[in-house]
Amino acid sequence: MDLKKLLRPSSIAVIGANDKNGFGKSTCMNLLSSPLKDHIYFVNPKREELFGKKCYPNIRELPETIDMCIVILNKKLVSGALEEAASVGCKTAVVYASGYGETGDKEAEQELRDLCRKHDLAVMGVNCAGYINNLDGIFAFGMLVKREAVPGNIAIISQSGKICLNMMQMDHMNYSYLISSGNSTCIHIEDYLEYLIEDDETRVIGLYLEGVKDPEKFTRVLAMAAKKRKPIVIMKVGKTSKGSALAASHTGSLSGSDQSFDAVMKKFGVIRVDDIEELAEMCHLLSVIPMLPPSTGLSAMCLSGGETGICADMGTLMGLSYPELQPETAEKIRELLPGYATVANPLDMSATLAHDGPRYAEVIQAFMDDPSIGMILCGQTILEHHEVQDVIYPMSDGMVMAAKKRKKPIAVMSFFNSSRDKTIRKKLESEGVPILPATGGGFKLLKYLMDFVAYVPEDHTLKLAIPESSGGETKALSERESKLELKKYGVDVPAEYVVSDKAKLKELKLTWPVAAKIESPDILHKSDVGGVKLNIRNLEELEAAFDEVVTNAKTHCPDARINGVLVSRMLPPGREFIIGVNNDPQFGPMVLCGLGGVFVEVFKDVSLYPAPLNRKEALQMIRSLKGYKLLTAYRGQKEGDVEALADMIVQIADYAAKNKDTLAELDLNPVFVYPKGEGVAMADALVVKKI
Amino acid sequence: MDLKKLLRPSSIAVIGANDKNGFGKSTCMNLLSSPLKDHIYFVNPKREELFGKKCYPNIRELPETIDMCIVILNKKLVSGALEEAASVGCKTAVVYASGYGETGDKEAEQELRDLCRKHDLAVMGVNCAGYINNLDGIFAFGMLVKREAVPGNIAIISQSGKICLNMMQMDHMNYSYLISSGNSTCIHIEDYLEYLIEDDETRVIGLYLEGVKDPEKFTRVLAMAAKKRKPIVIMKVGKTSKGSALAASHTGSLSGSDQSFDAVMKKFGVIRVDDIEELAEMCHLLSVIPMLPPSTGLSAMCLSGGETGICADMGTLMGLSYPELQPETAEKIRELLPGYATVANPLDMSATLAHDGPRYAEVIQAFMDDPSIGMILCGQTILEHHEVQDVIYPMSDGMVMAAKKRKKPIAVMSFFNSSRDKTIRKKLESEGVPILPATGGGFKLLKYLMDFVAYVPEDHTLKLAIPESSGGETKALSERESKLELKKYGVDVPAEYVVSDKAKLKELKLTWPVAAKIESPDILHKSDVGGVKLNIRNLEELEAAFDEVVTNAKTHCPDARINGVLVSRMLPPGREFIIGVNNDPQFGPMVLCGLGGVFVEVFKDVSLYPAPLNRKEALQMIRSLKGYKLLTAYRGQKEGDVEALADMIVQIADYAAKNKDTLAELDLNPVFVYPKGEGVAMADALVVKKI
Repeated sequence: MDLKKLLRPSSIAVIGANDKNGFGKSTCMNLLSSPLKDHIYFVNPKREELFGKKCYPNIRELPETIDMCIVILNKKLVSGALEEAASVGCKTAVVYASGYGETGDKEAEQELRDLCRKHDLAVMGVNCAGYINNLDGIFAFGMLVKREAVPGNIAIISQSGKICLNMMQMDHMNYSYLISSGNSTCIHIEDYLEYLIEDDETRVIGLYLEGVKDPEKFTRVLAMAAKKRKPIVIMKVGKTSKGSALAASHTGSLSGSDQSFDAVMKKFGVIRVDDIEELAEMCHLLSVIPMLPPSTGLSAMCLSGGETGICADMGTLMGLSYPELQPETAEKIRELLPGYATVANPLDMSATLAHDGPRYAEVIQAFMDDPSIGMILCGQTILEHHEVQDVIYPMSDGMVMAAKKRKKPIAVMSFFNSSRDKTIRKKLESEGVPILPATGGGFKLLKYLMDFVAYVPEDHTLKLAIPESSGGETKALSERESKLELKKYGVDVPAEYVVSDKAKLKELKLTWPVAAKIESPDILHKSDVGGVKLNIRNLEELEAAFDEVVTNAKTHCPDARINGVLVSRMLPPGREFIIGVNNDPQFGPMVLCGLGGVFVEVFKDVSLYPAPLNRKEALQMIRSLKGYKLLTAYRGQKEGDVEALADMIVQIADYAAKNKDTLAELDLNPVFVYPKGEGVAMADALVVKKI
Repeated sequence: MDLKKLLRPSSIAVIGANDKNGFGKSTCMNLLSSPLKDHIYFVNPKREELFGKKCYPNIRELPETIDMCIVILNKKLVSGALEEAASVGCKTAVVYASGYGETGDKEAEQELRDLCRKHDLAVMGVNCAGYINNLDGIFAFGMLVKREAVPGNIAIISQSGKICLNMMQMDHMNYSYLISSGNSTCIHIEDYLEYLIEDDETRVIGLYLEGVKDPEKFTRVLAMAAKKRKPIVIMKVGKTSKGSALAASHTGSLSGSDQSFDAVMKKFGVIRVDDIEELAEMCHLLSVIPMLPPSTGLSAMCLSGGETGICADMGTLMGLSYPELQPETAEKIRELLPGYATVANPLDMSATLAHDGPRYAEVIQAFMDDPSIGMILCGQTILEHHEVQDVIYPMSDGMVMAAKKRKKPIAVMSFFNSSRDKTIRKKLESEGVPILPATGGGFKLLKYLMDFVAYVPEDHTLKLAIPESSGGETKALSERESKLELKKYGVDVPAEYVVSDKAKLKELKLTWPVAAKIESPDILHKSDVGGVKLNIRNLEELEAAFDEVVTNAKTHCPDARINGVLVSRMLPPGREFIIGVNNDPQFGPMVLCGLGGVFVEVFKDVSLYPAPLNRKEALQMIRSLKGYKLLTAYRGQKEGDVEALADMIVQIADYAAKNKDTLAELDLNPVFVYPKGEGVAMADALVVKKI
């Protein structure tokens, strides 16, 4: 598939060109004013000419070999047109036609897919609105596009044509490409992504996603982007069951759980935003700033105490950090401000500086020179028709002066949205100073930005263990079988015995007290059937316990296969922890951990992360728990052995990744965490395999 | 104080009128074009005329008695001007002058305050920018205001002049009043609030607040508003320590804790927003909709699956409810949509309805007729220069048709902010259909709205127990003293004995086992000094325990006054709960509750609510805990006696309210919660009093 020929063609044929209102006419008009215009050909056997341009009866009669065709025909005629185009060497196309999988005709869609494969065609669509290549001025798009669009560095891929269209119309966004991917019958989102990650003109990629079709390629290209530090911003529908049902019915994408998707985004350093407004504005921010902040420390400066207070509140609540200023910075700023001003970060400059651009620039410069500051935020509402231009102009002059040094990014915090005067905006943004959305929204973008800055691709294992297939029958292993399975992957399993003959109990070398548990692949909740006896202090008690658990098991589960009784040393009690694995149908094994009991069940305090994972990732999982404090030296308890716990999580993830096609789920509950240096121990294990 | 004369004067004198750029010139020009113009008088002894209008040497020589004067003089001349005005019967004024408390001259501010009291003056300011009365076209404001402002029903009071000014410039907001309150030297925020709550022209009041000066009046007027169901929207700086330090330095307001403030807002049904953009947009929403939703059920309808999915996700995550449609509603809608559409809420109407306004209106109407739906949300991005007007026009026509019935509110969810075409906006908003901010922001407003709809003033005790003074020395009571104190207010205290003479132990009538605890007002952490012995099974053990706790106490706290040993029946264990009271310096006793131990300490899972409170409020406190589930029938445990727990919280709140001036803090930790019908019991109590 040649995406370059599709997206940057030297010649285009419009198959089914016409002048009726709708996609046909709009496409023709979009192309007529294109720089390529002498290499645009209209094809329609019923017309001699269209819009004053010659019309050809078919693609075979065109005077040159065509790079790309746009097919404006209805579903029935699409395959014929593509075959004909392929026969004369045109192997890329945009197809608008709808009525395929999205309305239930999956067969027609599969036929088209097969056709593309057969001829190695690169087809955008079906059920799409085409694309805009703003770099070369090629608007292969079904709705009329304004010519004045400025070439930029934001690429958008959208599964929804409507959202793509709306994005296009935002004046302040400068795009390289806008792609309405439609049903992704032939070219997948992942293919466009790969192209755009490699495209030097594109600096940030925004993706409106309803579902992932090829998780393996998807994550492979995300890893490419992570290593290149090229930001990808994703808005994905389906955070709730209502939303995901709607998204699935819309595109028919197979969707895994949203939590898994979210964990994958974290691993690959993707910026996942919550709505499409954030998608647009986050791309805009990344598009305008001349460089990423060198560090995550933020400074803010405002002209009033109230606005400074708002920046302090919102930034802090959002989890951003305002570092203390270095003494030299504070000293420099003190000299620039009136005597009564308090020098701090965020900084209330007082209104006196509002009219003095050069001095305003010097304050920004002082922040820029401070090694603990990564970015400077200038608080200033910039309203439409602003009447206090004697303030705005000097301030924006100051920002521009400082921005010209290109040392660290500067952004403007505007406290109201219904505003952002276009002249000021252009002046600032052309110097790399974006105006952020109003308060809450703007600080949220800064948090996304700083999380991206803090992400270090080298700290992550940038691959997943994607299973070959999903679903199917499963079978559980017994506790002992589960533990032995894990032992092969380095997980420490205590010495223990499965005894099927009570008479053999006396031959065991035991350290008292011990536990006796029924050992059966068919009894998963052993306690519930009286299958567990703890704190057994001697042989006599053990023999009684043997009888009891076997009898209980046989009474409650008459059909269960019983391997015997598992006798193991009583583990000393420790802080209870849970490690689990779910196998996401799309993204493979997801490791979950949390503190045991109510912390997981009531407070939902868990970390989820895709396997395989490394020690840093495991430590991050543990530390991101709200209840992490309970593993530290807290209330007279010794610090827990978090290092050993991380090691166990890594081993479990390794096991899960290596068994991605056979593992259905895994549950270690509880794992005891002992004081630092004393390790961890799993007290129970359950492995469920696919069969 | 006559606020009506201040805000709706029939005649105005401008003292110190001038034509230099700045507040003086702008004020004059604002007033010259006012409908009052024949009753506007300029006073300046140095000028014969100004702007073609006669200038008077002083206020005494004006031809009529003046309602209000605007003082454009610097600080030194202000008092003289006010006295002179008062001497001719003008008792209301706007004073712009700065340099008072806000820059450290608290003395000058106090003198001015005394002067106002002496003459019963109503003075706005100092350090303010004046006000705009949009109802009568009176712009008593220090910066030039556009004439075309439309009279509306939003009143804004802002402690920050800058924020007030910015708000004014928002085209889509229609105000009754905009008040820049400045330092509130004489007229407090609370006074303006009271005026506006009683003002029939004002439908919603927005408040930008840095701190409260008169908590008693503040809460009294909030109660008035709550009972009238007039919405008050408050943005208060100071959510974090950084922010509150900045806000305090700005206005010098005494501030209590932000959590207390938040709890007070909940009690009085105030809409507290997080930033000033939300403040503006929330006021706008409440200003435009023709009525409050009759219930909290939301419906949403969009033209694409993607947008419908976003509405489902965002609404659900925000805690809004999309009720299932009644069968008749579903049937009606099914008939209006194409066959392949799925009828649900939120509703994906599919694009086919985009061109059919009347049918679109019928779908809205069907939702309106559904008793479970309180409001209808129409998802549609309305961009500036929208090229697909063949969609927007029919849809907005449909909305207008449905809106004319004025049955239930309709709002538009626009998925992008940089847009909202002004023509469409006017058309819709004049019919009571607001366009909400983009996705996340818009759904947050809907959540605020529905919380306001769900608030029932009758369910709340709309008063606080504001203490006379704050701070001061404190002294702790012993456990027994604390319990006896609470017993007077109905709190159930178990039978127990304070024994100072070991020999008397054998005379006690005890139910074994018992606990023995050192009884001393000087030992607050009894366990830490070995002052507690539990599970004592007989007299012999009790006598030994007596010696032990006394010896331990004397060893560890040689200076402690010891009342003896508190002997009490061991309480059967129950679910542990904590009830506490802090006495907020501004808003008085705040009752806090939560599940004991790590739930409070690590997960910060507590409810806070101002005393006094009623049973409904207490139940709401308990149910709003994240860990509430642990008090229900959970994991084989019986349901806890939540009713009895609520009763105890009410009693504690009652005690705290009645002792607002003497109670410093209170701590019941733990309170045991027993199964339903078996009550609750406090196992320990600590009351700290002010002395």
